[in-house]
Amino acid sequence: MQNFEFQNPTKLLFGKGQISTLKKEIPAYGKRILLVYGGGSIKKIGLYEKVISELKEIGAFVIELGGVEPNPRLTTVQKGINLIRENQLDFILAVGGGSVIDAAKAIAAGVPYDGDVWDIVTSKVSAPSNSVPIGTVITIAGTGSEMNGNSVITNWETNTKAFFNSSHVLPRFSVLDPELTISVPRDQTVYGSVDIMSHVFEQYFHGSSHAPLQERIGEAILRTVVETAPKLVNDLNNYEYREVMLLNGTLALNGLTAMGVSPDWSTHLIEHAVSAVHDIPHGGGIAIITPHWMEHVAAVRPEKVAQFGVRVFDLDRAGKTDAELAAEAIQSLKEFWKSIGAPTKLSDYGIDDKEIELMTERAMLADQIGSYVSLTKEDVRKILRNSL
Amino acid sequence: MQNFEFQNPTKLLFGKGQISTLKKEIPAYGKRILLVYGGGSIKKIGLYEKVISELKEIGAFVIELGGVEPNPRLTTVQKGINLIRENQLDFILAVGGGSVIDAAKAIAAGVPYDGDVWDIVTSKVSAPSNSVPIGTVITIAGTGSEMNGNSVITNWETNTKAFFNSSHVLPRFSVLDPELTISVPRDQTVYGSVDIMSHVFEQYFHGSSHAPLQERIGEAILRTVVETAPKLVNDLNNYEYREVMLLNGTLALNGLTAMGVSPDWSTHLIEHAVSAVHDIPHGGGIAIITPHWMEHVAAVRPEKVAQFGVRVFDLDRAGKTDAELAAEAIQSLKEFWKSIGAPTKLSDYGIDDKEIELMTERAMLADQIGSYVSLTKEDVRKILRNSL
Repeated sequence: MQNFEFQNPTKLLFGKGQISTLKKEIPAYGKRILLVYGGGSIKKIGLYEKVISELKEIGAFVIELGGVEPNPRLTTVQKGINLIRENQLDFILAVGGGSVIDAAKAIAAGVPYDGDVWDIVTSKVSAPSNSVPIGTVITIAGTGSEMNGNSVITNWETNTKAFFNSSHVLPRFSVLDPELTISVPRDQTVYGSVDIMSHVFEQYFHGSSHAPLQERIGEAILRTVVETAPKLVNDLNNYEYREVMLLNGTLALNGLTAMGVSPDWSTHLIEHAVSAVHDIPHGGGIAIITPHWMEHVAAVRPEKVAQFGVRVFDLDRAGKTDAELAAEAIQSLKEFWKSIGAPTKLSDYGIDDKEIELMTERAMLADQIGSYVSLTKEDVRKILRNSL
Repeated sequence: MQNFEFQNPTKLLFGKGQISTLKKEIPAYGKRILLVYGGGSIKKIGLYEKVISELKEIGAFVIELGGVEPNPRLTTVQKGINLIRENQLDFILAVGGGSVIDAAKAIAAGVPYDGDVWDIVTSKVSAPSNSVPIGTVITIAGTGSEMNGNSVITNWETNTKAFFNSSHVLPRFSVLDPELTISVPRDQTVYGSVDIMSHVFEQYFHGSSHAPLQERIGEAILRTVVETAPKLVNDLNNYEYREVMLLNGTLALNGLTAMGVSPDWSTHLIEHAVSAVHDIPHGGGIAIITPHWMEHVAAVRPEKVAQFGVRVFDLDRAGKTDAELAAEAIQSLKEFWKSIGAPTKLSDYGIDDKEIELMTERAMLADQIGSYVSLTKEDVRKILRNSL
């Protein structure tokens, strides 16, 4: 383990009907509110009305920023920043999935910053400590954005997806009502499940030594996804399964399993490069790339992949090498993701080898990426080719 | 799962040498400080000097309250309250184990309260929101007090041990340096390991339905203790084992595994009754009582005890009933605790049946206690008799 500092003060308001806490939580931060949401599904499920009714009860002044994209755009963020400045708003309420919350965080950080918010998104400068406070109402399990300081934003002018992390944009509170996730369609439910597992992997395959508790907790989340997701995708209206997946998503990326380790975000970096060029769903891209990334790292360091297979898929160690177990583990993961309906090849999204170089370029934030196994440009190119 | 609210803003400063963060963390809360510690072991290990040197660097005014007892006393708490009032102190720095931190919390809550602090400790009134801020430097793994709002205090005039929980006494920060726990002797190391497992049990055997993730995370902590404790008790100076046990202790009782469930604190209530009458080490009492409590509940609801055995001790389910598995699980737990040197009978501490009635009385905070299985006075009496 490495020395670490951990603090996560986000207040979780979890369960049926928790939307009614908005009127209690928000006034501490002010009553001039930017309401951020996505493509309108919150109107379809009646959530928009509930939120507006809560805001009316406290006499809030509300400016809306709807239509945030699934891979949220820098231009949308800039629009939000302008709305807050022009209307002197105090608080951002993000209602939606990870994209909406990520956009809200970049807006929050950009408001008090004089330069281009892209400087913050690309971590050239830190998010200011006086970032605008945020609250969230999450409508899909998976992102984890409701209890962390991460934000991923796409700049379509340069086909670049970048991310930043700052404690200054941690949501002050997040409403997690599993009922609000019941209408999430099957494909998005699958992507969410994949994303949760990937968030665990990125921290589980860390570059540090001796973090047995963090790994066991990661495995606890992985096993819970493996048990719950197949039941959920066949019973999308089941409250209990939705509940478990929602909490899974939050705990998979709130810093808990990253305590004292150096996470390896290679798969996310590669997927961000793919979806920055092709605008595919993040969870779909992750499902395609992860097994090929895992095959690559298993060839170098099979031991943790083997451990994952034994502890999550109950593989029998007897008489097998780590390399053999790792191969079985990857096969089990592929079969599991296929069984719940995840895509397996980039060509499922109509992506061919034309943009391999651009995608490789975009993934390489440095000469080498990754901490469990370090990847060169050549390695990334190979992983992408194998994913076609 | 039940609806729940979760917020834990305590900042963890984990790792070697983190004591040097005190000068950075404390000034935000003021420079007039009550330094609370126990029987002097912090002087033996050179920690006292390090703390004083940090406090000197920021020009702090320091009043000391040393000698806090292993089962901290109401009279000590009252002394601390008076010291803060008389000297108009701003901040409490608790350096030691759970008892020291628990005492600090009761002092913190008692200062702004006009009545007797025992009202707060017995949860007759809530801890005030303007409780004095606390920081901690923990010197033993197990309590969890460094990242929760719990405090257990003993009133020796009435032989009563009582506890309260309040977010207003959550430590603002806690320094967790595994090196500071290296000098903890073997018996205390064992008690800490037992206490960690017990904290998980009390939340694992909850009265709620369908909390698979919380249970898996509890099992992750239990397995990590089962793997680490035997190595640690035979290699007390091992930094890596100390590190793992310290984090185990913190995560076992910071609210994580209690999300959405009703914990069952019966074993702690019974042990508190025992140690309020006989002043034995808490972890020792827990090691004795837990298996007998578990035998009692397994007779009513064996399923979770069986699950614990299968998932933590790798018991083979094949051909066995839950009741049989539960019996094996309890046997495995007994053997495990015995193997690391925990006591097994109250008579190990010279306790006989003379005070059974008084202890039973003290444990019964209500007509029935417990949520996984509800215990009557008769049940508690039986568990205590079986523990003799």
